[in-house]
Amino acid sequence: MIKVGIVGGTGYTGVELLRLLAQHPAVQLVAITSRGDAGTAVSSMFPSLRRRLNLQFEDPASANLQACDVVFFATPNGVAMQQAPTLLDVGVRVIDLAADFRLSNVAEWNQWYGTQHCSPEWVAQAVYGLPEYHRADIRNARLVANPGCYPTAVQLGFMPLLEAGVVELDHLVADAKSGVSGAGRKAEISSLFSEAADNFKAYGVPGHRHLPEIRQGLSRMAGNPVGLTFVPHLTPLIRGIHATLYARINTKSTVDFQAIFEKRYQNEPFVDVLPPGSHPDTRSVRAANTCRIAVHRPQEGNVLVVLSVIDNLVKGAAGQAVQNMNIMFGLPETEGLRQLAVFP
Amino acid sequence: MIKVGIVGGTGYTGVELLRLLAQHPAVQLVAITSRGDAGTAVSSMFPSLRRRLNLQFEDPASANLQACDVVFFATPNGVAMQQAPTLLDVGVRVIDLAADFRLSNVAEWNQWYGTQHCSPEWVAQAVYGLPEYHRADIRNARLVANPGCYPTAVQLGFMPLLEAGVVELDHLVADAKSGVSGAGRKAEISSLFSEAADNFKAYGVPGHRHLPEIRQGLSRMAGNPVGLTFVPHLTPLIRGIHATLYARINTKSTVDFQAIFEKRYQNEPFVDVLPPGSHPDTRSVRAANTCRIAVHRPQEGNVLVVLSVIDNLVKGAAGQAVQNMNIMFGLPETEGLRQLAVFP
Amino acid sequence: MIKVGIVGGTGYTGVELLRLLAQHPAVQLVAITSRGDAGTAVSSMFPSLRRRLNLQFEDPASANLQACDVVFFATPNGVAMQQAPTLLDVGVRVIDLAADFRLSNVAEWNQWYGTQHCSPEWVAQAVYGLPEYHRADIRNARLVANPGCYPTAVQLGFMPLLEAGVVELDHLVADAKSGVSGAGRKAEISSLFSEAADNFKAYGVPGHRHLPEIRQGLSRMAGNPVGLTFVPHLTPLIRGIHATLYARINTKSTVDFQAIFEKRYQNEPFVDVLPPGSHPDTRSVRAANTCRIAVHRPQEGNVLVVLSVIDNLVKGAAGQAVQNMNIMFGLPETEGLRQLAVFP
Amino acid sequence: MIKVGIVGGTGYTGVELLRLLAQHPAVQLVAITSRGDAGTAVSSMFPSLRRRLNLQFEDPASANLQACDVVFFATPNGVAMQQAPTLLDVGVRVIDLAADFRLSNVAEWNQWYGTQHCSPEWVAQAVYGLPEYHRADIRNARLVANPGCYPTAVQLGFMPLLEAGVVELDHLVADAKSGVSGAGRKAEISSLFSEAADNFKAYGVPGHRHLPEIRQGLSRMAGNPVGLTFVPHLTPLIRGIHATLYARINTKSTVDFQAIFEKRYQNEPFVDVLPPGSHPDTRSVRAANTCRIAVHRPQEGNVLVVLSVIDNLVKGAAGQAVQNMNIMFGLPETEGLRQLAVFP
Repeated sequence: MIKVGIVGGTGYTGVELLRLLAQHPAVQLVAITSRGDAGTAVSSMFPSLRRRLNLQFEDPASANLQACDVVFFATPNGVAMQQAPTLLDVGVRVIDLAADFRLSNVAEWNQWYGTQHCSPEWVAQAVYGLPEYHRADIRNARLVANPGCYPTAVQLGFMPLLEAGVVELDHLVADAKSGVSGAGRKAEISSLFSEAADNFKAYGVPGHRHLPEIRQGLSRMAGNPVGLTFVPHLTPLIRGIHATLYARINTKSTVDFQAIFEKRYQNEPFVDVLPPGSHPDTRSVRAANTCRIAVHRPQEGNVLVVLSVIDNLVKGAAGQAVQNMNIMFGLPETEGLRQLAVFP
Repeated sequence: MIKVGIVGGTGYTGVELLRLLAQHPAVQLVAITSRGDAGTAVSSMFPSLRRRLNLQFEDPASANLQACDVVFFATPNGVAMQQAPTLLDVGVRVIDLAADFRLSNVAEWNQWYGTQHCSPEWVAQAVYGLPEYHRADIRNARLVANPGCYPTAVQLGFMPLLEAGVVELDHLVADAKSGVSGAGRKAEISSLFSEAADNFKAYGVPGHRHLPEIRQGLSRMAGNPVGLTFVPHLTPLIRGIHATLYARINTKSTVDFQAIFEKRYQNEPFVDVLPPGSHPDTRSVRAANTCRIAVHRPQEGNVLVVLSVIDNLVKGAAGQAVQNMNIMFGLPETEGLRQLAVFP
Repeated sequence: MIKVGIVGGTGYTGVELLRLLAQHPAVQLVAITSRGDAGTAVSSMFPSLRRRLNLQFEDPASANLQACDVVFFATPNGVAMQQAPTLLDVGVRVIDLAADFRLSNVAEWNQWYGTQHCSPEWVAQAVYGLPEYHRADIRNARLVANPGCYPTAVQLGFMPLLEAGVVELDHLVADAKSGVSGAGRKAEISSLFSEAADNFKAYGVPGHRHLPEIRQGLSRMAGNPVGLTFVPHLTPLIRGIHATLYARINTKSTVDFQAIFEKRYQNEPFVDVLPPGSHPDTRSVRAANTCRIAVHRPQEGNVLVVLSVIDNLVKGAAGQAVQNMNIMFGLPETEGLRQLAVFP
Repeated sequence: MIKVGIVGGTGYTGVELLRLLAQHPAVQLVAITSRGDAGTAVSSMFPSLRRRLNLQFEDPASANLQACDVVFFATPNGVAMQQAPTLLDVGVRVIDLAADFRLSNVAEWNQWYGTQHCSPEWVAQAVYGLPEYHRADIRNARLVANPGCYPTAVQLGFMPLLEAGVVELDHLVADAKSGVSGAGRKAEISSLFSEAADNFKAYGVPGHRHLPEIRQGLSRMAGNPVGLTFVPHLTPLIRGIHATLYARINTKSTVDFQAIFEKRYQNEPFVDVLPPGSHPDTRSVRAANTCRIAVHRPQEGNVLVVLSVIDNLVKGAAGQAVQNMNIMFGLPETEGLRQLAVFP
């Protein structure tokens, strides 16, 4: 049994980790921390876990995280870079669900996150936890930077095209729509039901923090810098991301784009390429660690449209983190992650 | 492995059965029928099942249901009473998720369902599949009438009080609210998103078909006829039923109502009595086979208020059906039913 | 033109007042205050008002509210009792949308609101602003206590029965469901989209502040104290209240309950009694100052069920406040309030 | 008073027309037809209109539409081209809310709508009813083709850029999201609450009927053919369209894009250009005849992003139709259309 700790378990990614880990056959949950709610039974805050999880939130200072094999940080940005190194130094492996170790360029991180990174030496050692691209490195990683939700959907959607070199790199467009749980479990007016229900809006058009993360990933895949326009939107779902991706074809020769996707993902347990002409629903991955993708070439023109859907809390956060844990500890990659999507 | 067939798998209870049974370790799904969609791959209609279920819908006439150990009918009312007897006669056990065998009084059934029952002899043999009340009989049942969604929530909420004899029987009120999936996967104007979203309404106040079913169950539990007012409502959830139950206390002596509930359900794997002062959310049971209950005595007056929540598609339909199957075949009652609720 | 001021315009009742008053032909909006947002253009906070309302929020201290003919308080409980008297003393009329002047029994108010009332002398002069019951007194009122949202729906639903004396008084049940905007525009976890969407729950069962307000009103109408069980619920609507009311018939003689309702409300511009057998939708009153009511006697039994729907922000708050203003200033009661409900 | 008839009043655009026209001071509604519901009181189908609209649906054959000054067709595609000519021939003016007269190229219409147009001679006389571009022609039009919902949002968003000639024409992208009422009031599985709620998906990516309509309009504005990728999506709103538009800047010189939009729309009563940095919400135009637009140049790159929101049933259908009627009959353009958006 893998001894697991969670730092910061009162947000949506935290409780989703709890849902997945409480049902994971190879995991023993030993500690979960919360500064504000120490002493509270986890199941009194989250009744969905009643009679299945008997932990209490502990104070981060007193929790014995050093006895864990792996610790998940489900904390706001800026916490893991401060607290993870102590654990890493004693051999505990760390999976950070926040953004602290996602950007390899520390200067760029400092700029987008508005503060000075305090563990740049660990940035260099961190592995970006997108298994479909970095699986080999994840196996031996001490520190995994779990990708953001938008970056997961967008990178998995563009990857086959970039690797195959069949689209122009300077004018990619990612129009992405997220459910409201992506904004976290924070008391903010803009996330209230009466503000977010029956409403649709873009946000962060001038610049969203996931832009450099996506650009970094796509540039790696392409082997060259890419030009990307990224527009996130808020849509009245609880869970789900739908990324609609646009790329201009760079070749006059005949290419079977469907085949490129099917071949690239044929052995991937969590990426499902739909038949030609399909339109994936976000609900088809609700509560499941799956990314479903469809590729279109409308009107046989020169623009490709890729549709990529995930559950932002699962493949976009907690599920992918557990997938990374499975890889790091030599477990079957699907262990504890075979729940079917909940429909309707 | 139990060989399982499903008749009528294209509705919401059908696809929920598929979700649960596809993950059940002791089940082999051998056939699923649909008159209208024979030949269609199940996963092309329900992409949430892609890569996990390779069955096609078969025509009811040609499907080899007689080779099954048990067949679930997830059909409209009136189908099972016609088709189940043939299976029963050759030793196939049947669980009917519709209403055909729920009322033991055939004349009452004829009246409420507006047609003549064609298998009254099987009505007499059917066991009403509420495990918390009829568990012993379910074990050996050849035919189980799976309870309706409202009846499950209402009966589990009233049962401890009726068995204990602490409330007046002639003025029970059940004010129940259901998500829209309870109306089924039928193309009807009233179930459209633009009609049901951001809207709340009562329906069926003059008389709903679940009224006689609930009344029959409550009268059994009480040992006497009960007077019940039952008002169902439609609320803009996909899944979930919340029953708010009112009963007048019939005694002046001091009674610990909380203790009555806790004791009655202490060994029940799927009924969770919340601490005093609680208000269960429907989402705390979303996609789980759980009923959560809280009991209140407002202002220390003479009226008890019981709050009872279930997922109408799970404990209110497919999950309870699987629970019944587990009991019928001597499996652990929770086998294949330990999924945690999906929150948020 | 009536010169109107609003104290506390950044909540949902405040912005709904603005929507209605900005379109009211006899109103000149002269001042709107907000402690936290003084200096901000109202339409930059509420873009729905852009190009139609050019006011800025002003500091309460500097706003010239004394020059107004009437001031609406759309503030949290406890503000109007402190600030209204100064205005009242100089002849400004006041309509309080909060609870400060709703309970005529000050001791009861102190108990339910957990603080000491600081203007008990004005409580005695306040008129409870339910026009269908107190219209005559509202005409000359200097201070109107605008009813709560639940109390409006429940009182209008029970009133004809209580006035006619045809139901038992000791066992009334009001099972009420409210949209989330009823919780106000406050940053609270429990009102987040990801908490309130796709969820249904009761709250405040041990005792909700609207209980004494409703009981006071019903007792007046009945001429005797009533026994009431009141259970509020949260349902995933933005706007809307649906009250389901239960009362036991106290007579053996034949009574035409439909006629009682139709007669009582025949001249009311904002109460609509539906034909027998109807089930009002909350959306049929969305954004309109209307209460729609249906009365049922299920199975010809001894229990009446009344269904009463309003928009909590209109007939349950801002619209009723404008209706009261119209009455107070001798305008046609429907002036500025004839907007049709928005469907779908 | 303008005598108005409506053909096909039982859908969402029909009932929205009724809401607007019933409150229009210069309109007398004289007839509304429905083949299936002749004889039914309009307000019994749509209780939101109770006590304000006393019409009954009439059979199209018997309704005296020829006595009207103008007739709105709120019918499925293909009806107006058959029935409108008879009315036009006797001098009745017609506004068609369907697609029959939107494409000036009849061959293209035949191809996209899969049938043979039966009134090509009227196609030539029809005026495309986008007032912001065709106002002069609408004044004297006998037949107005009211634009589609997506085309309205997309054309208003691109128009200033195309007229100014500042973007490349061969690679426009319109990523558009619509509420579910856009699918109409038809009993279809895919529009059920349990299918469309808590779900997001693209549809029609291979080719949507609004594509040629948008392309026709943009090409007129640009004075040259445009290359357009159009992807519509379904989002769980009742009302609202959000179009996110992408265009590549075609010039190295400094251009004030914000000023281009502000100048173009400065005298338009129903187009509101938001301040720089804004993100319009669909709810800011809910139930109002307004289009709100924001223009962004992310990261000062070479791609412009325009955000354009409308209510698909108002500015995208019934409201724009009334606006066209106002223009055709010399009324103030805002008559009957000054309702403020409903927020929250």
